[in-house]
Amino acid sequence: MGMVGGSLEAFIGGVHRIAAAIDGQIELAAGAFSSNPEKSKSTGRTLYLPDSRVYGSYEEMIHAEKALPADQRIDFVSIVTPNHLHYGPARLALENGFHVICDKPMTISLKQAEELEELVARTGLVFALTHNYTGYPMVKQAKAMISAGAIGKLRKIIVEYPQGWLAGRLEDTSKQAAWRTDPAQSGAGGGLGDIGTHAENLTEYITGSQIAELCADLTIFVEGRPLDDDGNILVRFANGAKGILHYSQIANGEENSLTIRVYGETGGLEWKQMEPNSLIHKTNGTYRVLRTNWGELYPAATAHARIPAGHPEGFLEAFANIYRNFAYAVRAHQEGKPRDPLYDFPTVQDGVRGLRFINAALASAETETKWTRL
Amino acid sequence: MGMVGGSLEAFIGGVHRIAAAIDGQIELAAGAFSSNPEKSKSTGRTLYLPDSRVYGSYEEMIHAEKALPADQRIDFVSIVTPNHLHYGPARLALENGFHVICDKPMTISLKQAEELEELVARTGLVFALTHNYTGYPMVKQAKAMISAGAIGKLRKIIVEYPQGWLAGRLEDTSKQAAWRTDPAQSGAGGGLGDIGTHAENLTEYITGSQIAELCADLTIFVEGRPLDDDGNILVRFANGAKGILHYSQIANGEENSLTIRVYGETGGLEWKQMEPNSLIHKTNGTYRVLRTNWGELYPAATAHARIPAGHPEGFLEAFANIYRNFAYAVRAHQEGKPRDPLYDFPTVQDGVRGLRFINAALASAETETKWTRL
Amino acid sequence: MGMVGGSLEAFIGGVHRIAAAIDGQIELAAGAFSSNPEKSKSTGRTLYLPDSRVYGSYEEMIHAEKALPADQRIDFVSIVTPNHLHYGPARLALENGFHVICDKPMTISLKQAEELEELVARTGLVFALTHNYTGYPMVKQAKAMISAGAIGKLRKIIVEYPQGWLAGRLEDTSKQAAWRTDPAQSGAGGGLGDIGTHAENLTEYITGSQIAELCADLTIFVEGRPLDDDGNILVRFANGAKGILHYSQIANGEENSLTIRVYGETGGLEWKQMEPNSLIHKTNGTYRVLRTNWGELYPAATAHARIPAGHPEGFLEAFANIYRNFAYAVRAHQEGKPRDPLYDFPTVQDGVRGLRFINAALASAETETKWTRL
Amino acid sequence: MGMVGGSLEAFIGGVHRIAAAIDGQIELAAGAFSSNPEKSKSTGRTLYLPDSRVYGSYEEMIHAEKALPADQRIDFVSIVTPNHLHYGPARLALENGFHVICDKPMTISLKQAEELEELVARTGLVFALTHNYTGYPMVKQAKAMISAGAIGKLRKIIVEYPQGWLAGRLEDTSKQAAWRTDPAQSGAGGGLGDIGTHAENLTEYITGSQIAELCADLTIFVEGRPLDDDGNILVRFANGAKGILHYSQIANGEENSLTIRVYGETGGLEWKQMEPNSLIHKTNGTYRVLRTNWGELYPAATAHARIPAGHPEGFLEAFANIYRNFAYAVRAHQEGKPRDPLYDFPTVQDGVRGLRFINAALASAETETKWTRL
Repeated sequence: MGMVGGSLEAFIGGVHRIAAAIDGQIELAAGAFSSNPEKSKSTGRTLYLPDSRVYGSYEEMIHAEKALPADQRIDFVSIVTPNHLHYGPARLALENGFHVICDKPMTISLKQAEELEELVARTGLVFALTHNYTGYPMVKQAKAMISAGAIGKLRKIIVEYPQGWLAGRLEDTSKQAAWRTDPAQSGAGGGLGDIGTHAENLTEYITGSQIAELCADLTIFVEGRPLDDDGNILVRFANGAKGILHYSQIANGEENSLTIRVYGETGGLEWKQMEPNSLIHKTNGTYRVLRTNWGELYPAATAHARIPAGHPEGFLEAFANIYRNFAYAVRAHQEGKPRDPLYDFPTVQDGVRGLRFINAALASAETETKWTRL
Repeated sequence: MGMVGGSLEAFIGGVHRIAAAIDGQIELAAGAFSSNPEKSKSTGRTLYLPDSRVYGSYEEMIHAEKALPADQRIDFVSIVTPNHLHYGPARLALENGFHVICDKPMTISLKQAEELEELVARTGLVFALTHNYTGYPMVKQAKAMISAGAIGKLRKIIVEYPQGWLAGRLEDTSKQAAWRTDPAQSGAGGGLGDIGTHAENLTEYITGSQIAELCADLTIFVEGRPLDDDGNILVRFANGAKGILHYSQIANGEENSLTIRVYGETGGLEWKQMEPNSLIHKTNGTYRVLRTNWGELYPAATAHARIPAGHPEGFLEAFANIYRNFAYAVRAHQEGKPRDPLYDFPTVQDGVRGLRFINAALASAETETKWTRL
Repeated sequence: MGMVGGSLEAFIGGVHRIAAAIDGQIELAAGAFSSNPEKSKSTGRTLYLPDSRVYGSYEEMIHAEKALPADQRIDFVSIVTPNHLHYGPARLALENGFHVICDKPMTISLKQAEELEELVARTGLVFALTHNYTGYPMVKQAKAMISAGAIGKLRKIIVEYPQGWLAGRLEDTSKQAAWRTDPAQSGAGGGLGDIGTHAENLTEYITGSQIAELCADLTIFVEGRPLDDDGNILVRFANGAKGILHYSQIANGEENSLTIRVYGETGGLEWKQMEPNSLIHKTNGTYRVLRTNWGELYPAATAHARIPAGHPEGFLEAFANIYRNFAYAVRAHQEGKPRDPLYDFPTVQDGVRGLRFINAALASAETETKWTRL
Repeated sequence: MGMVGGSLEAFIGGVHRIAAAIDGQIELAAGAFSSNPEKSKSTGRTLYLPDSRVYGSYEEMIHAEKALPADQRIDFVSIVTPNHLHYGPARLALENGFHVICDKPMTISLKQAEELEELVARTGLVFALTHNYTGYPMVKQAKAMISAGAIGKLRKIIVEYPQGWLAGRLEDTSKQAAWRTDPAQSGAGGGLGDIGTHAENLTEYITGSQIAELCADLTIFVEGRPLDDDGNILVRFANGAKGILHYSQIANGEENSLTIRVYGETGGLEWKQMEPNSLIHKTNGTYRVLRTNWGELYPAATAHARIPAGHPEGFLEAFANIYRNFAYAVRAHQEGKPRDPLYDFPTVQDGVRGLRFINAALASAETETKWTRL
């Protein structure tokens, strides 16, 4: 693995490295950790990389690695930069035969996203997008249950992603906050792109339903911030279900409370990211809690849990599932075998959906017409 | 107290009787429990009332009671009939000098509601509307905290009221379901009037903010049902806060999960009706749980709790608080004293707000324009 | 009903009055609320009783009421005094033909308890002991499930009752604390009698198993207090199950956290008084939550719930179930009919068990021998 | 790192490998994964180790690695075998200059434990015992708070570790169950050694108090099992606190519910392993929840968390903290620097305490005298 971005002070780079390391399937072998060559080198040294594999730019890394013998060079590129720096390295990596795993949202424009989609289709390479919440075992269980009809035809879906960390003007002091609230780096969506797309992706993944139209009320609550930090969105799904998607970065006091509830004709499911090892399944008259690695679960759930029930698995393990499944797909590609659908992960198509969602929500927020199609 | 409606098979009549009895301040002295005189009599007997005070109609009760000596007749009328039968007895009671406590929504039309408002203003009598959820101690605490600025200027408000009991065609077999899904008895709102108004009232009570405009997506999910059984509504408040109000009677597996979250500039509050003795107060970095009768609370909270912390108080005690406070106001009226604002309760104005909300949501659901003003 | 004790400043008197009032089956008709006649009168007036039925002592009340015509006098006596004042009125009431409902622990000596047991047997009158926690619907459900074999042969039982309110020397300022920590009023057990007996009674009720022997470590943590404020007790049951009973009044920060867990060969049950509408039923591989009035429950559970699922019922409703069931038994006695076992309540035998438990725990705490038989 | 034990079918070997890998500080470089050389080799290959570093026995590994140049050989040995196979490799490793990290309980006899203690003292090498639950951030927070007097002088401590997985005769089919219930492999304690020692260690770590005496009721509930599968133990601490330690492997339906509650004169703390990112701090009148990486925490807590609040960290991250801190200590040893006390971990002394606890509990279970000193 060669990493683009992820110098020591960044949050998400460390998460990707842990996620890649957990299962012993992936080795960090190279990196262009920063556009500042010195910073890139020092990050590399801290990570026990030889200087020779630490590069000053992603272009340098991709070209240099390609020049190495096939059994020595990296197999894939991991892109963990701010949003506006996804497209360039992703494109260059794909064009040079490297598989790609990339943070989300995939790009800062739908056009870029569609170009990557086309490029992946053309090259046949493996592309993963780290909508990491889909990696949780009980998310897999929820998806499998809905797919098997456990709660009947879907009617109502409520997904929410409240955070509070941007309740004040943190962008003046926090690098994490600064790029997320800067349109040049983040794209036209603020919270919408950063966490709204997670909510959208999780919903479409679990339910197998696509948002067909929406009605968005997006707000900038913190004065002087150029991008939305809160959004309330009515959603209608292609299959007739209806619902709500709301997110916030100014929900003061909320940590990272991504939650989804899905109600069908015969029952309902509820999953909370902050208590990820429980999946609540209710019907009128029953209430049961399904637990990671406890009792009968679908293979998709058990294939993504590592330790016995009651030993809580968390965010990093779910993230690691994306990496591990991506690694399996890369290996299958190398061996000319088909991917095992049990070990799925978000793909370039999810990235395109995310950009469509961002665009539709932004358009809806600007219009006085109720419904905007995705 | 003379009750209108509430024969034995009705659910809410029994709740009102318990709520009235708990504090030993109110005596059930008369009743017109059913339009069927036999049923009314048998209900009265079961309740240990003398036949002479059990009537075949509310008109009969009001006129007969008025004819009794002042120290023997009822002081007020409690109306627990389906929605379409609120206006008639409320009007007649007020016109004949009886105070009124009435179930919600107040009427089936805004015009009726405004007439009652005018009548209450003219007569000076006490009118309470049993939006009972405002009777919980921790709801009082939340209101007091917000009023005192504990979470700063309000930004986001999420209120929801999911139930699942009408996920199937229960109206064919359940009298409770039948009248609630019948426009002639329930009014033009189905779930909207039955529980949406509770959510609206609770929100405006706790936050002291009024909904200024809304955008509603109302649905009838169960085939053949004439009234909405689900609603997703974007709301904007007069003071600049924004939010979501959603309710459902088809959220399969949900019991009665009324929940409100309010986020201000400096913190957030969360209250769940199904765990009513906890009020969660968070800020970025802190998380505390305020508990009924535990530690320092506002007088409004302690004045509505009866027993030491850890002895759970529930729905009936909250409902009883409405009755007790109404009784206090009636007594104050009788004694020519002012009402003590500590012992508040929903009034005829709340009833008018409820009808405005119903009308606006129904209008919004029919239009392609995004925002409808209340 | 004629009440002994329960003047306005007492906590438990008000609870008994509410519990008696809720279901409209019992009327407070007389009272000897205080040994101070003035205080008794003023309490009576606040409760809307005529002065003629408010007495200066329980002896006066019992004799005066007995002298009334049968259709005018009270049917039963409710005793809500401190522990040392249970025996006297209970005995006198029974000897004069009045049924008795009495707070717990029943007496301050086993000898007194056994005398009451004998007297109840001899008179055939109805005697209820307000071990109120057995009145919760989900406690009834747990008992019914265990009795039906839902978790198999019992192995391990853990019951605990932690409170924190006596962590400091509250007895100097609180009347509630003062009598509970005074051996002359409370008996030889402090926390042991006050809450330890609740834990013991709840356990024996739910499991149908009797404690056969125990090993107690009782402590007085607050300096100068003459009675135990904390206890840790190993227990062994007659049927081979083993377990732990612990209680505390110095568990700083705990409200009233009575909790029981029972494990059998094929599953486990857990019930918490502070979340009383849930009963957790687990097996290795399953986890379900049974909820008051939700889905299929045993008749014993549904017979003790009043309102639909999701409308929380609490402490007062559970307490009221004891009163209502007692009233049913009194009526059955008056009508010469057998009691309906569905409407059960703790009896004089439970009172005797409680005293045996207190005696055994106190003896165990004094000896260096491991096990003390009950 | 060279691993002893941990072939692919073992549970705990994989946990150790993940824990070692997460922070990128430790490389698995060698292993004697099984006493079956073929199984050892195949495990090594799956883990991408060269055959040359995969050994058929720990003796072979230690001698062969010692013969390698210092910059190529392993720095330490990780021992993940069943209990009876800890002492041999630990001793040989220490005698040959390798640091040791070892699973718990440390040995199967107190004598062995004391020998290792002496050997560690003599060699000055680093020895860590994987009482992994002490690695959780909120456990560190609890320890720091108690040490700083946040809840005052300790009075009552309740620790419990219920599991249900051995409710049936799993040892006939599960290798994990088989060795744990075999005295030859597990030592004289069954559940006592496997999980009772975790409870003991966690308690002494958090509270800084040592168990001085105990009174144990240990049971074998599953017929034919030679070792205890349940234990109820009264404990008294050297500093005057009292409490309860109970554990079970037959608590049917329990996953891995290690929980500790500590009450002091001025407050109480509660931590549950299955919800590890919350630490509840209550006093009489307040209730707050401290959360991993949220708000003001002690440095010991923040130093053991990796990601922002709301991204749940779990069992593997806590386990990894033990490995990382051990690695820091090894590096400090190599560099001749003192250990940083912030990065602590359980040591050989904890191992000796564990064996003393096991011995005392077993002795207590056999005697009719109430208290047995540790």
